[in-house]
Amino acid sequence: MPPLAHELASPQQLETPDTLHTKEWLRRYQRIRQASERLCQPLCTEDYVIQSMDDVSPPKWHLAHVTWFFEAFLLAPFQPHYRPLDPVYDHLFNSYYETHGVPFPRPHRGTLSRPTVADVYRYRAHVDAAMAELLESPPPEHAGEIVRRVELGLHHEQQHQELLLMDIKHILAQNPLCPAYRDDLVSPPEETPGDLAWLEHAAGIREIGHDLQTGFAYDNEGPVHRQFIEAFQLANRPVTNAEFLAFIEDGGYARPELWLSDGWQQVGQAGWQAPLYWVRREDGWYHYTLGGLRPLDPQAPAVHVSFFEADAFARWAGARLPSEAEWEVAARDVSMGGNFVESDHLQPVAATARGSAAAQLFGDVWEWTGSAYRPYPGFRALPGTLGEYNGKFMSGQMVLRGGCCATPSDHIRPTYRNFFPPHARWAFSGFRLAREA
Amino acid sequence: MPPLAHELASPQQLETPDTLHTKEWLRRYQRIRQASERLCQPLCTEDYVIQSMDDVSPPKWHLAHVTWFFEAFLLAPFQPHYRPLDPVYDHLFNSYYETHGVPFPRPHRGTLSRPTVADVYRYRAHVDAAMAELLESPPPEHAGEIVRRVELGLHHEQQHQELLLMDIKHILAQNPLCPAYRDDLVSPPEETPGDLAWLEHAAGIREIGHDLQTGFAYDNEGPVHRQFIEAFQLANRPVTNAEFLAFIEDGGYARPELWLSDGWQQVGQAGWQAPLYWVRREDGWYHYTLGGLRPLDPQAPAVHVSFFEADAFARWAGARLPSEAEWEVAARDVSMGGNFVESDHLQPVAATARGSAAAQLFGDVWEWTGSAYRPYPGFRALPGTLGEYNGKFMSGQMVLRGGCCATPSDHIRPTYRNFFPPHARWAFSGFRLAREA
Amino acid sequence: MPPLAHELASPQQLETPDTLHTKEWLRRYQRIRQASERLCQPLCTEDYVIQSMDDVSPPKWHLAHVTWFFEAFLLAPFQPHYRPLDPVYDHLFNSYYETHGVPFPRPHRGTLSRPTVADVYRYRAHVDAAMAELLESPPPEHAGEIVRRVELGLHHEQQHQELLLMDIKHILAQNPLCPAYRDDLVSPPEETPGDLAWLEHAAGIREIGHDLQTGFAYDNEGPVHRQFIEAFQLANRPVTNAEFLAFIEDGGYARPELWLSDGWQQVGQAGWQAPLYWVRREDGWYHYTLGGLRPLDPQAPAVHVSFFEADAFARWAGARLPSEAEWEVAARDVSMGGNFVESDHLQPVAATARGSAAAQLFGDVWEWTGSAYRPYPGFRALPGTLGEYNGKFMSGQMVLRGGCCATPSDHIRPTYRNFFPPHARWAFSGFRLAREA
Amino acid sequence: MPPLAHELASPQQLETPDTLHTKEWLRRYQRIRQASERLCQPLCTEDYVIQSMDDVSPPKWHLAHVTWFFEAFLLAPFQPHYRPLDPVYDHLFNSYYETHGVPFPRPHRGTLSRPTVADVYRYRAHVDAAMAELLESPPPEHAGEIVRRVELGLHHEQQHQELLLMDIKHILAQNPLCPAYRDDLVSPPEETPGDLAWLEHAAGIREIGHDLQTGFAYDNEGPVHRQFIEAFQLANRPVTNAEFLAFIEDGGYARPELWLSDGWQQVGQAGWQAPLYWVRREDGWYHYTLGGLRPLDPQAPAVHVSFFEADAFARWAGARLPSEAEWEVAARDVSMGGNFVESDHLQPVAATARGSAAAQLFGDVWEWTGSAYRPYPGFRALPGTLGEYNGKFMSGQMVLRGGCCATPSDHIRPTYRNFFPPHARWAFSGFRLAREA
Repeated sequence: MPPLAHELASPQQLETPDTLHTKEWLRRYQRIRQASERLCQPLCTEDYVIQSMDDVSPPKWHLAHVTWFFEAFLLAPFQPHYRPLDPVYDHLFNSYYETHGVPFPRPHRGTLSRPTVADVYRYRAHVDAAMAELLESPPPEHAGEIVRRVELGLHHEQQHQELLLMDIKHILAQNPLCPAYRDDLVSPPEETPGDLAWLEHAAGIREIGHDLQTGFAYDNEGPVHRQFIEAFQLANRPVTNAEFLAFIEDGGYARPELWLSDGWQQVGQAGWQAPLYWVRREDGWYHYTLGGLRPLDPQAPAVHVSFFEADAFARWAGARLPSEAEWEVAARDVSMGGNFVESDHLQPVAATARGSAAAQLFGDVWEWTGSAYRPYPGFRALPGTLGEYNGKFMSGQMVLRGGCCATPSDHIRPTYRNFFPPHARWAFSGFRLAREA
Repeated sequence: MPPLAHELASPQQLETPDTLHTKEWLRRYQRIRQASERLCQPLCTEDYVIQSMDDVSPPKWHLAHVTWFFEAFLLAPFQPHYRPLDPVYDHLFNSYYETHGVPFPRPHRGTLSRPTVADVYRYRAHVDAAMAELLESPPPEHAGEIVRRVELGLHHEQQHQELLLMDIKHILAQNPLCPAYRDDLVSPPEETPGDLAWLEHAAGIREIGHDLQTGFAYDNEGPVHRQFIEAFQLANRPVTNAEFLAFIEDGGYARPELWLSDGWQQVGQAGWQAPLYWVRREDGWYHYTLGGLRPLDPQAPAVHVSFFEADAFARWAGARLPSEAEWEVAARDVSMGGNFVESDHLQPVAATARGSAAAQLFGDVWEWTGSAYRPYPGFRALPGTLGEYNGKFMSGQMVLRGGCCATPSDHIRPTYRNFFPPHARWAFSGFRLAREA
Repeated sequence: MPPLAHELASPQQLETPDTLHTKEWLRRYQRIRQASERLCQPLCTEDYVIQSMDDVSPPKWHLAHVTWFFEAFLLAPFQPHYRPLDPVYDHLFNSYYETHGVPFPRPHRGTLSRPTVADVYRYRAHVDAAMAELLESPPPEHAGEIVRRVELGLHHEQQHQELLLMDIKHILAQNPLCPAYRDDLVSPPEETPGDLAWLEHAAGIREIGHDLQTGFAYDNEGPVHRQFIEAFQLANRPVTNAEFLAFIEDGGYARPELWLSDGWQQVGQAGWQAPLYWVRREDGWYHYTLGGLRPLDPQAPAVHVSFFEADAFARWAGARLPSEAEWEVAARDVSMGGNFVESDHLQPVAATARGSAAAQLFGDVWEWTGSAYRPYPGFRALPGTLGEYNGKFMSGQMVLRGGCCATPSDHIRPTYRNFFPPHARWAFSGFRLAREA
Repeated sequence: MPPLAHELASPQQLETPDTLHTKEWLRRYQRIRQASERLCQPLCTEDYVIQSMDDVSPPKWHLAHVTWFFEAFLLAPFQPHYRPLDPVYDHLFNSYYETHGVPFPRPHRGTLSRPTVADVYRYRAHVDAAMAELLESPPPEHAGEIVRRVELGLHHEQQHQELLLMDIKHILAQNPLCPAYRDDLVSPPEETPGDLAWLEHAAGIREIGHDLQTGFAYDNEGPVHRQFIEAFQLANRPVTNAEFLAFIEDGGYARPELWLSDGWQQVGQAGWQAPLYWVRREDGWYHYTLGGLRPLDPQAPAVHVSFFEADAFARWAGARLPSEAEWEVAARDVSMGGNFVESDHLQPVAATARGSAAAQLFGDVWEWTGSAYRPYPGFRALPGTLGEYNGKFMSGQMVLRGGCCATPSDHIRPTYRNFFPPHARWAFSGFRLAREA
């Protein structure tokens, strides 16, 4: 890994080690690593193996890949006597780091029966033991960089915790047996959010992005920079199922004038007539959830819609999607509480929205913005192979903000930039309307 | 299943029941059903789930589908109080019987984590118990038809035993870990077959096909009919790996004049440079076997070649493939012994071929013939849904004869017509040369 | 062209030249070459350029390719001072002769605006002049081979005359303007063929194929060989539009039990609900013809059906398609008159069919047989590059017999084997039923 | 066209007619319409028909489509007695206006031999005559809207003039005969631009976009809005062929770390190793131009590169692409002169670039920016069907600025937003570097 040598030579990495600090990190490491495994407890062995579409990875692949991340970026460079469990894993579980080696082809992840699920858990234990050793007595000259990478690795694992839930949902939803992931999810509250209200934001220069010196953020959230934002209005809550149904019933999926050209083509090719997982039955609309097939809750935020559907709805409603900067301005002053993975709904739920404050900016549904995923002015990717983490995906995708019901609550920030292609629907993606002031 | 009522009314099915007879069939049923499960014993749970290409089915699907066959064609029509374990299985495990119901889409068999492997074994036990009951006291008026269908169902299951081995091999071969299916396979004998010799056959009218009144055969093997066969010569053994290597080294895969047009296109598109599973290493050629990656045995019959490759080799060698009638004429007088699944090589092996007799017509490799798979004159498909078993595949495929190292030895006949598309290579398919007298 | 040297050395090619003979051939050459151009007279320049699907070639490509055939196989080897008009044409107009050079990719023929139509006619004139010179004073030592190749080249051009009409029809049919190729076609006679009658044929050994020493035939028609043919019955005429409509109205395109598996898949993917070019309007069925859109004539033979449709109809009718040998036996004793291109209908027409004789075996529609296109026993392809003419297409196709309304009447023989893939419909393809005696 | 009625009712369209004004517009109409035809004069009839890829349209389609625009949006609504030449043209030549009717499928434009080229010219004359009549005596109550639409229609036609040249180049470039569009193009000057220099721009709030009240612009160029732009540096000229060659020779196309993920995938799938139309010969690099195959001019701007290639080059060079706002800020103060279609090079040419001023911002090559094509804050599409002109393409595309050697010089503005998907290369697209201050 030649680029690394170069990185390590840079002065900023020669800071004083802090052993207590790394032991703290070890506890955090263990907590987050266990959370991943806890998410998989309801699975049968067979569930771990399936790749239901190219974008989905088998759950055991997720468990192994996040482990590989620590092996490749921590143990291999910083633990000289570390021995990999199997040298082929470095190929199998490299997701997309081309400068690290040739990744195993993504669409074939579902053809791998081996390593088995038990093997993967052994791999996790093997790496966890070596990581514990590393964090208990890190080489002093690398301790700073180790902590930085452990932090990144844990955020990476938390991202995959959400992906695990998205992918498990997609896998089980393909099955005509409609199996539930869990039967014991926390029931949603019975709330009736009032009518949508518009919150005003004045024009002005705003600072956007995360100051990378003040706490963790991904490289793509920085640097802080100024944007002039014209006055705008933002809805006080996301669009609900009831509102989305009205769009459907008004012929929304059959009216080309409401759609972007690419979106209209997608509607035709894929035969979309409703959000993903929606099923119309004689007695009304149902949707597949991680708790099985359930009647649609009209008050809950609409979810599993693509950017194209969000954009078409907004046009139909005489509004638009907010830019990511507008969203961030609105979210700066808001508490980050919400329906996250810890709420154990694993589904967006209705909230009492009062007109005067923005509700549900965090949690419930990732909110599509109208912004294409591109670098901020002055953006620098991480050095070396880790620079492939975010930067190389900055084309063809749209930004989503705020986290969702499958996101760990300590994984989200107002500046967090999630991104998916405009046709993707298997994330817990919804949207909120905006309009000119 | 309305067609069935019609079938049952036909006089031939009203013969006297023979209870002893059906008990005998029960023992055979149990023996063959157990053989399927024994073949799967070396698998991990994860191996059961994978579909490595559209043509391959997950092993658990095979185990369930052959069980469904007995449920759909025996228990449902003849066991009035039979209750299915899960009504959705009738959809999931219907392979291609369109007149029975809408089959679950073949390319998506690998997206089904449920029913689990344990569920599938429970399904087998459930059906086996009901079948035991049926065969111990069959309704007298249906006993004849029941026996006929059980016999068909058991041959069907034996076909899938071979498919299981083909598919398991393909599944494991995709994996960069190169896992072996078994480590304890019987080692091949060290034999050196002599040079290829040509055996003469005179011209004349021959009877071809199986007399469907005299023991079991599939519908596609009949009726017996006359063919005039011009004089021809047939090789005394299949083409070996050493011979096929000579073709490769003579540029066989780079010379369009040797290939059928479709074959040449396939070579280009798929980048073929050797048979499936062959790997060139610095120290020579290897091939993946069910025992793992092994050096190529030059004396063993070449296997995992397509019809296109067999045909190109034959043209290169100044010969041709035999027609299926020529092959059948030669096989009529030959012992049916050979290297079958019971030999436990699970790979073709070299045989001592003496010039005066045809060796290895049965077992080792299915032999591509030059005959397209079409109905014999006077062919009648089975009545009702079972008519879809063979007849509807009579386009776009070529006939192979003789069984292979993965075929149960009591499953083969001189008249047996196997068939695959001309580009298929994942069967244990080889070939034998013929030429004009 | 090294193979040629070898061919020319073979003794059979050293026969005495016959100058009168070659002048006779020159007249035939000129007549057939002019016929191709006459077929193109109704075209606009733009019509010459279009490739409406991969299987279709632009008319100007046809005109150039048949010319290239004479250049490549006659002028280049036998006319030492011949100079090609443009050396790139040898690449552009080589259809599929891989041993001659790299053919221009077939699916891109429609991207070539140059050479222009006028250029192509100049190319024809250039080659025609050189051919006239060659045929007026052929090198004595090659005269025999020259005549053989000219004969082949002229049959080749006649094949392309039919392809021209098929392709022109397909090109114009794509156009919402529904342009007619010609407005002055000869109107069909008003005939009402009686009910279908079955003609008996006894079992026995028959000689099949063309004796290649007794007049021209393609290599694939020989050698003469014996076949035993079981007794069978053959319909006295092809299936009519009225009969095919009854199949449609009986749900023929919606009943999987009537179809081969590949055919059923094709029906679903392509959305077939009627033969190609059929259009249902409020006042009944129409079809596109070379004379424009016209009401369907119920008495005319059904045309533009695939093998799959013919096979499904036959199953529905309780019959089957004849084998090519059965067809040939029936056609041996029948006059070869019929509705050919000279009749100037350019569409199959109703004929008075009397029960006692087979009508329309020749002309009107190519008749799908139940025989896959494979070599006869003892088949030898032509030597050298011309061996690619027929032999390499012997997989994946079905045989059709008898010529059609677009075939030159002096181009057909009882032994003539045409072939298309089973899904192809743009030829003038129909069918005739057979059944067991 | 019901939406139109609504539009016409809006008060802004009831302004006083100005007959002199519309006569002025007639002259402009005639001048621009003639320019389109002049561009096609060098074509053979056959060239007009070809569609060399889905993105390319046959030249005769362009000529007809721009005519249809006037028919559909001017004559049909405002000229009551107008009679279309053929009612099917409204279907054939509607490009993508879904609310107007069902457009003929884009990928099949190359299957239309009719209407012929002569028919298309007749169609143009027919519409031109009706347009002359309309503009000479417009209905007073619609005169304002008529002028607005004529202006739009003429800009539309000018856009297609550039598309014509792009498409003609692509069509002729597919042909192994390498035909030149013209042999009499103006030779490029022999210039040697100096080394690249960086021009400084200070941070601040800037007004971006076109004031739609002050002269023509497309709807997507407005409204004027404020952006805060951080300080940046912009290169004084586009990247040259020599510079791009250095990237190639440094392994640019083989180093994944330089590429966006989508770009790297595209490089692999399409096998890119150089810009479109580049050909490496033994004596160096050539490229296909509208004047035929010519040696690459190292001093001319690199052209026919995709966004992906521009972005990878910039990363390799330690720079980035400018945002469209940065580009616009730099272009505000610059003369709009340059190498446009009137220069008759039809190829970018080297320019003397002095370090102190930005050269070639206009003309030569469209410059890829780093900005995704999305609406400006406050964007409103045109009302009715014309709203489909620009707005619905605002996903999946990147903005280019400045016009090129094929753009009419009176068609460009500093605010003009062109857009193409990031992989597109057949436009005259190059790029200019930027970096942080």
